[in-house]
Amino acid sequence: PVMKDSPFTEKFFTQTLDHFNFNSFGNGTFCQRYLISDKFWQNGSGPVFFYTGNEGDISDFALNSGFILELAEQQGALVIFAEHRYYGASLPFGKDSFSRPLVGLLTVEQALADYAVMITELKQQLQADNCPVIVFGGSYGGMLSVYMRLKYPNIVTGALAASAPILSTAGVGDPRQFFRDVTADYEAVSPQCSAAVRAAFQQLQDLAAQYRRIQSAFALCQPPSAPRDIHQLNGLLRNAFTFMAMLDYPYSTHFMGNMPAHPVKMGCDIMLRGPDLLANLRDTAAIVYNSSTPLSCFDLYNLYVECADPTGCGLGPNSLAWDYQACTEVELCFESNNVTDMFPPMSFSQADRRRYCSERWGVTPRPGWLRLQFWGDALSSASNIIFSNGDLDPWANGGVRRSLSSSLIAINIPEGAHHLDLRGANDEDPESVVRARKQEAELIAGWIQISAPILDTDPGLSSSTE
Amino acid sequence: PVMKDSPFTEKFFTQTLDHFNFNSFGNGTFCQRYLISDKFWQNGSGPVFFYTGNEGDISDFALNSGFILELAEQQGALVIFAEHRYYGASLPFGKDSFSRPLVGLLTVEQALADYAVMITELKQQLQADNCPVIVFGGSYGGMLSVYMRLKYPNIVTGALAASAPILSTAGVGDPRQFFRDVTADYEAVSPQCSAAVRAAFQQLQDLAAQYRRIQSAFALCQPPSAPRDIHQLNGLLRNAFTFMAMLDYPYSTHFMGNMPAHPVKMGCDIMLRGPDLLANLRDTAAIVYNSSTPLSCFDLYNLYVECADPTGCGLGPNSLAWDYQACTEVELCFESNNVTDMFPPMSFSQADRRRYCSERWGVTPRPGWLRLQFWGDALSSASNIIFSNGDLDPWANGGVRRSLSSSLIAINIPEGAHHLDLRGANDEDPESVVRARKQEAELIAGWIQISAPILDTDPGLSSSTE
Repeated sequence: PVMKDSPFTEKFFTQTLDHFNFNSFGNGTFCQRYLISDKFWQNGSGPVFFYTGNEGDISDFALNSGFILELAEQQGALVIFAEHRYYGASLPFGKDSFSRPLVGLLTVEQALADYAVMITELKQQLQADNCPVIVFGGSYGGMLSVYMRLKYPNIVTGALAASAPILSTAGVGDPRQFFRDVTADYEAVSPQCSAAVRAAFQQLQDLAAQYRRIQSAFALCQPPSAPRDIHQLNGLLRNAFTFMAMLDYPYSTHFMGNMPAHPVKMGCDIMLRGPDLLANLRDTAAIVYNSSTPLSCFDLYNLYVECADPTGCGLGPNSLAWDYQACTEVELCFESNNVTDMFPPMSFSQADRRRYCSERWGVTPRPGWLRLQFWGDALSSASNIIFSNGDLDPWANGGVRRSLSSSLIAINIPEGAHHLDLRGANDEDPESVVRARKQEAELIAGWIQISAPILDTDPGLSSSTE
Repeated sequence: PVMKDSPFTEKFFTQTLDHFNFNSFGNGTFCQRYLISDKFWQNGSGPVFFYTGNEGDISDFALNSGFILELAEQQGALVIFAEHRYYGASLPFGKDSFSRPLVGLLTVEQALADYAVMITELKQQLQADNCPVIVFGGSYGGMLSVYMRLKYPNIVTGALAASAPILSTAGVGDPRQFFRDVTADYEAVSPQCSAAVRAAFQQLQDLAAQYRRIQSAFALCQPPSAPRDIHQLNGLLRNAFTFMAMLDYPYSTHFMGNMPAHPVKMGCDIMLRGPDLLANLRDTAAIVYNSSTPLSCFDLYNLYVECADPTGCGLGPNSLAWDYQACTEVELCFESNNVTDMFPPMSFSQADRRRYCSERWGVTPRPGWLRLQFWGDALSSASNIIFSNGDLDPWANGGVRRSLSSSLIAINIPEGAHHLDLRGANDEDPESVVRARKQEAELIAGWIQISAPILDTDPGLSSSTE
């Protein structure tokens, strides 16, 4: 079992290594992990709820997406959480997976083909041929859910894409949007809060090369010794505010590290605690970096690693994979500029990206490719997709915020952070997320009802020709 | 110019070698050929008619798809004929293109990405950002047109897929259908005709190992010396009947070799000419194999090459590429059995295919992949596609023969052979193809009219979010 009293069983699927080249790895395969629960399934007739795993261990997503199980209980669904290739326990080449050219099989297209093949084969194994499939995903996983419905509607009846920034990651929109919206969360607590953050960063800048004072002010394990270290410190601090904004849930969570309830509010309380702005800034960052084990000092380069994602890649092997994806297909050229946001000016242009990715991975990013391949904002011919977003989430405005048709539904959750709606019900849930989950449940039930008679997703059926 | 007085200019597009792996050929490119004509284009506002090139030199398709130019004149369209990678002058690695592993970049997915990228970039170059794109294709090219609309509706507004066997090539349907329908064409001329063909093949079989008599009867350059040679002779003969059925046009053509008007009728006249059935069979096959230069004798292995496509791969480098595609994604396991058709029993099972393709190309075919990837008969969520088929064409019943919705239109042409409707107007055209072209023109005009205001195909537009 993945977790104590877990309804899930951990299994491995024999997956094709390369779906797009018959002469690269021949018919080579790897073991792809998935978690499955038939606890609530109406055998052979209930729908299949399939979580399109994103950039992490699949068990973390299963543990933090309780809504899917709650919905499965309501609707008699089989639940599958599939792990994304190159993450968690699904490394195609073990510890060599991130060497070149082996890392080249890490693409969005390969991941989608993995899910399409897995769904098709598991349905056959489980005699679920006639069962409609609904895909679920949060963040990048939500993008994958959208893409599954766009590219494989023969396999997927509908998608719930929670906090899926399909536009900003495809180069559509304003590169200033993300950190502007992080800032807005603190501004919303009180204008004094964002002003204090801005002033604190200014004090840090004014200290310039007074490295000893900076070390003591921020309790750094080593004193900075070059502008590069100050840049790293700024990145580490900005990242703390980003995380608290993304994960600004009304109760404490253990999703991406440990986070107290209402971290943004707590951060603002600390920022406004006393006159020592640098101490306040340090203690606010500690909400994130001190959350697991209390640290005697902050290590600039161990707590935060700069990568091709200005919002943070995290640490460990999963962060390697994500860095590679941000260097190839996923465009995250977000900037802070201290004008439209409260942070120091830190830009990440396509030129910066090209330089970094060529050195780090020997690849050339392909701006515009994700938009070309997955339609950008030209979604009018798509159907059966819910785009849910929380207004507290800095990713929200990089996604679809207005319904595009009667079957492309935007659900906005005023008091919601990053895919709060995918989390299980909680006493602290704001009314808006309770309403959102109810609406999502109704829309999904409707898709299932309509699709059930349409048997053309059944591989066993005869063709529509004479 | 490609042809005398051609409206087309030949150009080359710098195309990405591998769209699906950032570490294989880096950002390597190759020169992809295309033919372009703005002769009829309403600059910057008229639609773009884009032919998704299939398994041959693009100039052959341009020369034999006059309808597209005639329609362009009516609708003020820019016309582009794009050549499929690994065919014609678009060999990514020159003469090494068919060596391993270089041939691995020959896939349907790469070809579609080529067209999506080419359309997007050419529209920008030509300031045609707001111009709707209609894709056209015949046979495998028609399959590609369908796939473009399924996978890239953000780029393609609609598709005319002429004689596109999207079902039979995806393993949907009856493997006996193709040669059954070839037989039906001769049966339709007269039951005596197909009976004579059947009897002639029987006589050949009765001759068993009388190789000298077989050589003289069929004017073979060398006498057969083994059952393998007789198998080859049967394949060569069956192939002649297949070609005449596919290319049974009401006037002489020079598309795939030279073909007289009404070749099936002519073949039947010869089959019923006299009592010497073997001579009649030989002279009927000569309609195909003797059409270019009169031969003093038939060379079994130079006139016809057995491959992974039982309907024939043709000769030359283009046939190599097609053989590889039939060994990987395109499923052509068609059989003749002498029961549902008039030919000797010749089967090509998935096991035969696996064996041949592993020896020939070192690849393992992937049955079911094309269906999974391009939806098979699960097309209900698609739109704006015309599936045209001619009843004389043995490929027709491997395609979509009944309209699936108000925007998935099947047009059947009783007197039509293989994509006759794509050919330019001809005095000998049957009424049914004239009607079909008129209906196609109206449907396409309708798509363009509706799509014009919808600017979401315009890469320059702002996102649909706030």
